[in-house]
Amino acid sequence: MVIDVLRATSVIVQALSQGALEIIPVITVEEAFRMAKELPAGTVLLGGERKSQRIEGFDLGNSPGEYLSERVRNKRIIFTTTNGTKAFHSVSSGKEVFAGSFFNVGALARRCAELRDDLLIYPAGDEGRFALEDVVCGGMLIDRIRFITGEGIEITDAGLSALLLYQRFKADLTEAFRLSAHGRDLIRKGLEEDLALCARIDITEVIPLFREGVIRPAGEDREKRGHKDATT
Amino acid sequence: MVIDVLRATSVIVQALSQGALEIIPVITVEEAFRMAKELPAGTVLLGGERKSQRIEGFDLGNSPGEYLSERVRNKRIIFTTTNGTKAFHSVSSGKEVFAGSFFNVGALARRCAELRDDLLIYPAGDEGRFALEDVVCGGMLIDRIRFITGEGIEITDAGLSALLLYQRFKADLTEAFRLSAHGRDLIRKGLEEDLALCARIDITEVIPLFREGVIRPAGEDREKRGHKDATT
Repeated sequence: MVIDVLRATSVIVQALSQGALEIIPVITVEEAFRMAKELPAGTVLLGGERKSQRIEGFDLGNSPGEYLSERVRNKRIIFTTTNGTKAFHSVSSGKEVFAGSFFNVGALARRCAELRDDLLIYPAGDEGRFALEDVVCGGMLIDRIRFITGEGIEITDAGLSALLLYQRFKADLTEAFRLSAHGRDLIRKGLEEDLALCARIDITEVIPLFREGVIRPAGEDREKRGHKDATT
Repeated sequence: MVIDVLRATSVIVQALSQGALEIIPVITVEEAFRMAKELPAGTVLLGGERKSQRIEGFDLGNSPGEYLSERVRNKRIIFTTTNGTKAFHSVSSGKEVFAGSFFNVGALARRCAELRDDLLIYPAGDEGRFALEDVVCGGMLIDRIRFITGEGIEITDAGLSALLLYQRFKADLTEAFRLSAHGRDLIRKGLEEDLALCARIDITEVIPLFREGVIRPAGEDREKRGHKDATT
């Protein structure tokens, strides 16, 4: 499970919940432009950020508020951010890799409880550092899984710490955002509105699944889901 | 700052506070025996653990309760544990490396506040994993430093999380020990008594300093401090 609440995985969940066909996470801006050229015009959007700002020549930035149905429905989104998109390539291991955020934490918890397998939560962090908001989201996921499965699941000290940090902030998740290094940086850059946007809980059932370089809603038959629309 | 509350750095602080001359942390049991042979008989003790138990042929295990004045005064201690002793060699960087525990947290905080330099807290963990008790001790150290310096110091999200986890357990540190993976393992092995021993706060002013492979009390003139006694 990759979690980058501020803001890559929040955007990924949001875009798929608004009908985007798929997200292709790429590492570099050059790769994004190159890939866009190879795909039919009108079917693809470029999204992401560098230094928290939209990239020149891109269609969309890294705020969930930009990824609305009228813009993204039936589109492929090539997506690159400073940390979050790298994380998918880092953890990719043949196992299922999901994207997590507060938006879909309930759906994820049910899925994880069903899978009954080891779960590695990867808080994508801010330039490789421990990010409070991602750990708090991971803690909420553990809390929800334990609510479903009972206390029988084994958790590491890191998981337990995440759970305790979630309990500390559950009354106001945006407090964790405002205390975190990345949250304070977004506020300084005039992006405070995104903190409230990214703190919304359980607004969708979508579970983004990363497989073979592409993120799509888990369990969905892609052909059925309007791929036709996108190419006509 | 290396912290391995259960139990390597607790033992190191305890041994020096009880008058041990120096601690030589080594990685392997073989290295410990080899080094002991090279030193004058009667001046040296072997201490440490594997799988939480005293090592065969060693004088002392890894419980602070064994490192009392009558046993360790004016002795050199060659010391090897599963995680803690490795940590000193891992973080060694030319900078000052201290050993921290609840025993000396107040003295450490005053020293760190005086130094006014970047501080890296290294929770030595359990076989490379995140250990709750070490993070809680690191959080207490940050809390004490902030009490001295005011809130002006910058802390990372990891430091902030450690501070919050400390606040969660400050009323009963042994609760953190009992919840932690390593604490539960010590209880299973009949070593529960060590949890209470290692939770004692501010019982000494000793600040162990690792330099050139040896740990001695910081700021102490070693010759003055009874090295003579040890060799006569």
